[in-house]
Amino acid sequence: MEPAGAERHRREARRGELAGASESNALQFQPVKIDLHTHILPRDWPDLDAKYGYGGFVRLDHYKPCCARMMIGDRVFREITDNVWDPERRIEECDRDGVSMQVLSTVPVMFSYWAKPADALDLSRRLNDHIAGIVRDHSKRFAGLATIPMQDPDLAAGELERCVRELGLRGAEIGTHVDANPHSGRIDPLNLDNASLQPVWSAAEDLNAAIFVHPWDMLGKERMPKYWLPWLVGMPAETSLAICSMIFGGVFERFPKLRVGFAHGGGAFPFTIGRIERAFHVRPDLVAAENNTNPRKYLAHDNAAARFYVDSLVHDADALRVLLKLFGAQRIALGSDYPFPLGETKPGQLIESMKLSAKEKARVLSGTAREFLGL
Amino acid sequence: MEPAGAERHRREARRGELAGASESNALQFQPVKIDLHTHILPRDWPDLDAKYGYGGFVRLDHYKPCCARMMIGDRVFREITDNVWDPERRIEECDRDGVSMQVLSTVPVMFSYWAKPADALDLSRRLNDHIAGIVRDHSKRFAGLATIPMQDPDLAAGELERCVRELGLRGAEIGTHVDANPHSGRIDPLNLDNASLQPVWSAAEDLNAAIFVHPWDMLGKERMPKYWLPWLVGMPAETSLAICSMIFGGVFERFPKLRVGFAHGGGAFPFTIGRIERAFHVRPDLVAAENNTNPRKYLAHDNAAARFYVDSLVHDADALRVLLKLFGAQRIALGSDYPFPLGETKPGQLIESMKLSAKEKARVLSGTAREFLGL
Repeated sequence: MEPAGAERHRREARRGELAGASESNALQFQPVKIDLHTHILPRDWPDLDAKYGYGGFVRLDHYKPCCARMMIGDRVFREITDNVWDPERRIEECDRDGVSMQVLSTVPVMFSYWAKPADALDLSRRLNDHIAGIVRDHSKRFAGLATIPMQDPDLAAGELERCVRELGLRGAEIGTHVDANPHSGRIDPLNLDNASLQPVWSAAEDLNAAIFVHPWDMLGKERMPKYWLPWLVGMPAETSLAICSMIFGGVFERFPKLRVGFAHGGGAFPFTIGRIERAFHVRPDLVAAENNTNPRKYLAHDNAAARFYVDSLVHDADALRVLLKLFGAQRIALGSDYPFPLGETKPGQLIESMKLSAKEKARVLSGTAREFLGL
Repeated sequence: MEPAGAERHRREARRGELAGASESNALQFQPVKIDLHTHILPRDWPDLDAKYGYGGFVRLDHYKPCCARMMIGDRVFREITDNVWDPERRIEECDRDGVSMQVLSTVPVMFSYWAKPADALDLSRRLNDHIAGIVRDHSKRFAGLATIPMQDPDLAAGELERCVRELGLRGAEIGTHVDANPHSGRIDPLNLDNASLQPVWSAAEDLNAAIFVHPWDMLGKERMPKYWLPWLVGMPAETSLAICSMIFGGVFERFPKLRVGFAHGGGAFPFTIGRIERAFHVRPDLVAAENNTNPRKYLAHDNAAARFYVDSLVHDADALRVLLKLFGAQRIALGSDYPFPLGETKPGQLIESMKLSAKEKARVLSGTAREFLGL
């Protein structure tokens, strides 16, 4: 005998397919998928070390067809393939994988928060103009997030405004902290609770711009010489540090319309919320000194003072179930880290494998990104 | 109508109670609870800065009755109460909370892996003799874990042997890494995959001694000046770093009889196992260079090459459910962090609140600790 909900489930799934078909000519009878978390670079840019007069910037070495090496000085940072820079290749792969739209953001190593503010602004403008051009050429397939020079919050706010107002980007991708900046004489990194960053949050609110927080410059990386641990231990910790800093620093309280999304399902934060909430209760002198709202409240999708999102990139059904229970489908958006190997090969596959209603599935596959980005 | 399993459930619960009653005279009709994760200090010890001739050691300032301040130089490290040092007070609180037995280990700030090896050995012996004395005086209520000077693995192995063979301790509590040691001219901390630590693993195997890994000296703490974040972000990351180091460094492969338990439910590791396994598959050149066994295999309780345990201290039912699914009740032991505020106020309360069979509950409340400690 067929379980009672099966027919309803088929009807709902069918509705999901039709909704998909109505919004994407290319992808009939597939659910709409908007991939919030993808990275892109231009194919070429000038030698930045030479242009700015000091080292540390990334250059591309196109050492063979369809492949390049990202170089920092003489060091190979990463091998990449042409789907990092070629929009046609990306669209081919999206069609293959059933992805309706990619949200483009730079590769975090390009943030350059350690550089002179004017140089980081110059580089940001170049990267943002590039992303905007691709979005303009393929507006049904791509949306864009800017990079902004967080080492100078006023410049960052200005560039965010330019990108949203003039270029049509949907917001910005920023790091989990702002590196120390020797050029500005600031020897300590800034966490995202730092008061000096308020011009950025204020601009994002005013512009209705989304802020997507992606870990970079991983804490403790000097302790992680092997096994790719900065990516496996450092990144989840960075993201938890960023979330805790924004919550306990009261950023969501001061900027209640700010929409912030965190990569990799919020890193280590969701699994450690019990410990974090416990600390809030037992040591408010340390934890609640600047904001006495229970951190768990920010996870509730019906909390008006928390437009707090995560992507779905956890590679594990049990972990995604924890996210769904904590945040609800309303606050989780498909993110694949395309085209990098630590991402999800077929974007949305984990979500599609879960027991969710067609409505919830559609929400995670596209609805949340649509709301987050204001599409 | 009563659900079919209710009567069976009552029978099982009753069996659990009887098993408890048969093993603890003091606690009839309660389940046996062995708390794997508790900390203890002596009430007094000599001025170590003076004794060893350099600063950085902890002293106790008994500034009012029943209370003391742990001091490092002029800095208050932590306020503590007499249940940290007084076994009678501990037994009173255990009786109140239904805890049959506490496993005693030192407070991680006492590890002193940064000190001269001979001094750390001297301090370790003092702390271990103290724990052994309490276990001797109250052998039904306490078991003990040693601290060992990991900055000198041969001294550490020797002290472990003394503690197990002569003092009857069940193993050792160690940190998630070994601090840099200026006295030995070693400027880098050692992760737990470091080959120099093999004498410790070898001794633990030979002695059938348990190794309980507790985070300390948290990575990135310089990035965490506020909100108690070294405890909330640093500790879970430290523990994940330790687990990844032991797995990818092949420690469990080389020492298949070694039993290792990790505090705080394994920190950030369980929630990020999907990401970690993904990395193993896509970048084996980085991740699997020293051990090509899938990291997820070490979580299986039927894997002979992984006697890998975690405690239950996650403060969240969904997180504990993830642990139960990943590790099974067989590898999870009640741990409360008694008597510190970030611990579980009533040890075992979260476990008891879960839908588990009486058998599974008994396993987590006491059976796993019994196996882990060889009781």
